[in-house]
Amino acid sequence: MVDVDKLKPMANALRMLSIDAVEAAKSGHPGLPMGAADLVTMLFTRHIRIDPADPDWPNRDRFVLSAGHGSMLLYSLYHLLGYEDFSIDQLKCFRQLGAVTAGHPEYGHGKGIETTTGPLGQGIATAVGMALGERLLNAQFGDQVVDHRTFVLASDGDLMEGVSHEAISLAGHMRLKKLIVIYDDNEISIDGPLKIAETGDVVRRFEAAGWRAERIDGHDFGAIDAALTRATQSDKPTLIAARTVIGFGSPNKAGTAGVHGSPLGTAEAAATRSALGWTAGPFEVPEDIRDSWRIVGLKSAQAHRDWRTRYEAMDAERRAEFDRRLRGDLPSEFAPAMTKLRQALLSEKPAMATRKASERALNTVNAVLAETVGGSADLTGSNNTKTDHVAPIAPGDFSGRYVHWGVREHGMAAAMNGLALHGGFLPYGGTFLCFSDYSRPAIRLGALMGIRVVHVMTHDSIGLGEDGPTHQPVEHLAALRAIPNLLVLRPADAVETAEAWEIAAEYKGPSILVLTRQNLPVHSPGPATQNRSRRGAYKIVTTQKPEATLFASGSEVEIVVEAAQLLAAEGVAADVVSVPSFELFFQQDEDYIDSIIGGTTVKVACEAAIRQGWDAIVGRNGGFVGMTGFGASGPYKELYEHFGITPKAVAAKAKALLGR
Amino acid sequence: MVDVDKLKPMANALRMLSIDAVEAAKSGHPGLPMGAADLVTMLFTRHIRIDPADPDWPNRDRFVLSAGHGSMLLYSLYHLLGYEDFSIDQLKCFRQLGAVTAGHPEYGHGKGIETTTGPLGQGIATAVGMALGERLLNAQFGDQVVDHRTFVLASDGDLMEGVSHEAISLAGHMRLKKLIVIYDDNEISIDGPLKIAETGDVVRRFEAAGWRAERIDGHDFGAIDAALTRATQSDKPTLIAARTVIGFGSPNKAGTAGVHGSPLGTAEAAATRSALGWTAGPFEVPEDIRDSWRIVGLKSAQAHRDWRTRYEAMDAERRAEFDRRLRGDLPSEFAPAMTKLRQALLSEKPAMATRKASERALNTVNAVLAETVGGSADLTGSNNTKTDHVAPIAPGDFSGRYVHWGVREHGMAAAMNGLALHGGFLPYGGTFLCFSDYSRPAIRLGALMGIRVVHVMTHDSIGLGEDGPTHQPVEHLAALRAIPNLLVLRPADAVETAEAWEIAAEYKGPSILVLTRQNLPVHSPGPATQNRSRRGAYKIVTTQKPEATLFASGSEVEIVVEAAQLLAAEGVAADVVSVPSFELFFQQDEDYIDSIIGGTTVKVACEAAIRQGWDAIVGRNGGFVGMTGFGASGPYKELYEHFGITPKAVAAKAKALLGR
Repeated sequence: MVDVDKLKPMANALRMLSIDAVEAAKSGHPGLPMGAADLVTMLFTRHIRIDPADPDWPNRDRFVLSAGHGSMLLYSLYHLLGYEDFSIDQLKCFRQLGAVTAGHPEYGHGKGIETTTGPLGQGIATAVGMALGERLLNAQFGDQVVDHRTFVLASDGDLMEGVSHEAISLAGHMRLKKLIVIYDDNEISIDGPLKIAETGDVVRRFEAAGWRAERIDGHDFGAIDAALTRATQSDKPTLIAARTVIGFGSPNKAGTAGVHGSPLGTAEAAATRSALGWTAGPFEVPEDIRDSWRIVGLKSAQAHRDWRTRYEAMDAERRAEFDRRLRGDLPSEFAPAMTKLRQALLSEKPAMATRKASERALNTVNAVLAETVGGSADLTGSNNTKTDHVAPIAPGDFSGRYVHWGVREHGMAAAMNGLALHGGFLPYGGTFLCFSDYSRPAIRLGALMGIRVVHVMTHDSIGLGEDGPTHQPVEHLAALRAIPNLLVLRPADAVETAEAWEIAAEYKGPSILVLTRQNLPVHSPGPATQNRSRRGAYKIVTTQKPEATLFASGSEVEIVVEAAQLLAAEGVAADVVSVPSFELFFQQDEDYIDSIIGGTTVKVACEAAIRQGWDAIVGRNGGFVGMTGFGASGPYKELYEHFGITPKAVAAKAKALLGR
Repeated sequence: MVDVDKLKPMANALRMLSIDAVEAAKSGHPGLPMGAADLVTMLFTRHIRIDPADPDWPNRDRFVLSAGHGSMLLYSLYHLLGYEDFSIDQLKCFRQLGAVTAGHPEYGHGKGIETTTGPLGQGIATAVGMALGERLLNAQFGDQVVDHRTFVLASDGDLMEGVSHEAISLAGHMRLKKLIVIYDDNEISIDGPLKIAETGDVVRRFEAAGWRAERIDGHDFGAIDAALTRATQSDKPTLIAARTVIGFGSPNKAGTAGVHGSPLGTAEAAATRSALGWTAGPFEVPEDIRDSWRIVGLKSAQAHRDWRTRYEAMDAERRAEFDRRLRGDLPSEFAPAMTKLRQALLSEKPAMATRKASERALNTVNAVLAETVGGSADLTGSNNTKTDHVAPIAPGDFSGRYVHWGVREHGMAAAMNGLALHGGFLPYGGTFLCFSDYSRPAIRLGALMGIRVVHVMTHDSIGLGEDGPTHQPVEHLAALRAIPNLLVLRPADAVETAEAWEIAAEYKGPSILVLTRQNLPVHSPGPATQNRSRRGAYKIVTTQKPEATLFASGSEVEIVVEAAQLLAAEGVAADVVSVPSFELFFQQDEDYIDSIIGGTTVKVACEAAIRQGWDAIVGRNGGFVGMTGFGASGPYKELYEHFGITPKAVAAKAKALLGR
């Protein structure tokens, strides 16, 4: 069945294109493409279902190259399969500015790249989200239109990263049987033989996490084929630990760390050509081998045509909903529902923690948006992330819409990326703001890819009180605002919280909702027909002839409102600006920005966090009332007093700047 | 042998003090102290060697409460053992501002707290560093003075966190046989039964990582005793998975998530008192039980006296070195050696990458400081962290001073904290700056504790070139500068790199050295006798009547120096300031700060990173040339052009601000 004589040259084509591209770029990683070429050749020739003519086919099998440094393997493969974006010219400008063939696979650069990889561990953790997405969408739309696998090629580095533990224990726990990870077990790390740093038993490790796992020879096509067949029949996720030789084919460098991340060099590239019996020139592939690969692509595409028939047989309304979900469009009911919610909140003016307000907003969001998948990293009751609309998902049962992620902030964030990338979902997940540090690598990757996920981060300051400095964020707002494309939303009350949810659902990128544990009164002036937070900052107190402007976000808006009252009592008129989002504010036109920060020379900002970033609003000589170091354990009102974050302090700062 | 009748009331004393303190605080976590009291009682009565009269005794066994939310267990225990800092009054003001009894154990608050815990997973990962420190110091000073164990009490949350994987695989790989982890396996997570989120096999998981692992009943004193005895005889690290009942003793709440993080309440506290047969009032402990605990402390201290005899028998010079190492003082040879290095660099003026310059500095540092323990997260050749003085550590062989950490940035950073906390070491470890995101929770904890570790972070900008945006930091400088107490040092040349190493070695807290991949010329003006970087920012080009001041750090200093030359050619005098460290600069007096930034109205900063933070130097209306989003894959010189980070752009910005 397995025609080794045909497969070998096909794998060698992947090897040689990779070598040639790395040589041309004078940098890159030939070792993995050479070592894993047999694995990938077997996987794509007989097991994976994709359509090179339509890389976005919703029911395609996903292939994640977790070991992103082996990017040329992916580019060579997609080129040979006939993916339009991966022309031979693109291969020739590997790692050059503007090419789709970046140093590591970049989502959005070329169709077929399922996710950005490179930071190790992210690919496998993201793939867990994709595999979960498949099961969830399957539960919602049925086997006829959703029924695919998620394959991962991972390296030892991926498996050493902590996030891999969170990912594999999640996948094992949830019984994501359609997730198949091939581990390119080449026994080589950058620093030398893997055994200098890692001597654990990977098969037992995965088995302990509830996986099916086995070892094979990664250059034995029959063994690879058989293992993949067994994997597709398993009722658990599968690990195939495939022993390979890094840099396979290189007479002098194969099996060494030297072939991992540097070009072979002209002489060794030539020696490898000769050793592999490859007579074609650089970037040339003999027509018969090209044909073999093209046929693989065409045969694989048959599954797409079959699927299309089933898809077209769907009820029209259902199909429209399926399409909408995959496009990521919001239903027309969403905006009116959010306006109605704002109306209710403006009339009730409930004093509540913004985490509670977020739960209230979710009552609307989850009712209207069937695409939400909620969850929390074991802080459901604290993050207020669960509403009645979203039942928990249980192992093997994907009828729900809520994930008990466990204490796995990083795995949760990466899987949320995977859900978003899979398509059909708006994932949101909660933890404490302080622990955004744990999920930061995945948050960054989501920002880089520009995918829609919502991180719900509660307990956002010393306002959480007694749990103390390990749980009290002081630098996190600045650190998150620093990430490009990430929308950081820190609402000041229940109304702004609802607005933040509306903005996050619409945003084509990741958002973070930064929410309080403590109650806050409503300051938002309305009107209900308008989402004031959209401009990032706006006046909530306007005086006739202001001498000072006071700025704050979130829980400190209450403080500056009181400060303005104190100042007013002393005859000083001060305007107050709520700043729910720096990013949105600085996207406004100059006139608007100037209308908010240009009114008075004296500007004072207040945030229970460090000053960094606020200089952009109040200026270097502006006033700031906030934190200068870590927090402390104690009742929160005492902490605010202790750290001097009070209306009095804000008023005093303004007066000092006014010279009064 | 095990006197259960005596041990039970001792354990109940821990339970009741914990309950009383949580009730008094009206917040806190009674569940773990109640569930794990038997474990800890057995551990401390028969296995651990500490001295309550001298909590800092260097050869004490370390006890790490990884599940930091169970802090009252630790405080109750230390109180009963007779640790001076944990008086009954301190227990009474649990979680109050200013108390040593913070919500989570805070290092430095009271003697006996070995490390700050609370963010889950950090304790166990830090303990790996402590256990490694013991083995290394043992290899250097011998069994007579260094021979202790490291015990950890961990929760399911600790083991779900990804960093636990990095930690346990490191410990198993290195065969840290004196590390013993007790897992408080109470089957309850915050969201409910653990099984809703985790169904893996913890014993098999640890065995796969090279540990000895077993399950016991965590309320069977004999079983606990026997397991601990087996653990101390193992040639591998040991996991004891002890099945316990969370909130043990509470008639209505034991075994439920409700007892995890909330007070029992008056009625249930009373019911628990009665169920445990505890007749003493709140915060009262019957004298006989107090005596039992005091005797434990006194008996344990015998080991200290025996050790003292051996310690005093040490050769005087060797003992002085041992003492110096544990105090963390630098030897007198250090400063002159660094001056000599600076002299050599100032005379040679080598154009080199700062990562290479760091290696050169390490040649001096490692030769003079026997306390350094180097390493890299599998990027040794890229981070340039290994010199000939530091031989690799191998499994079971701790004669070296260099750790191949594997691709475990987070585990490395946490273990570095553990090495520093153990005492006797100055740990440094390398990775790419972008991957500081992975280790960020541990970096933060080091900053919070104020412990001396050096993070060597190379490939610090788009200057790394072809690896692309996943590897190119743009927000990391701002995000790291945001962490209080953390010293971020971004040297501009070989001289500043040597200075950065000198500063980092002296600093009583964590430092990050931010280093380039690309070559940089020497700009530092000297003199060799002075470490100019100590002031954080200083002029390297001074003109007669400057019209503008140009600021930069690291690799962009070269760019602003060239920009100043372009401006000079057009008749515009511009001073140039190198800013190796924001933190050090803003610690200077107002006069100095003013002398650096107050000279000209027109200020332009350049850094191949986002602007955030620079407003504090150049002001809101100052110029900035840098990044506004993520990077790209391509040769680095092209990237600098592409993103407009060039001398021409800096000069143009200055001219525009001057209105020319």
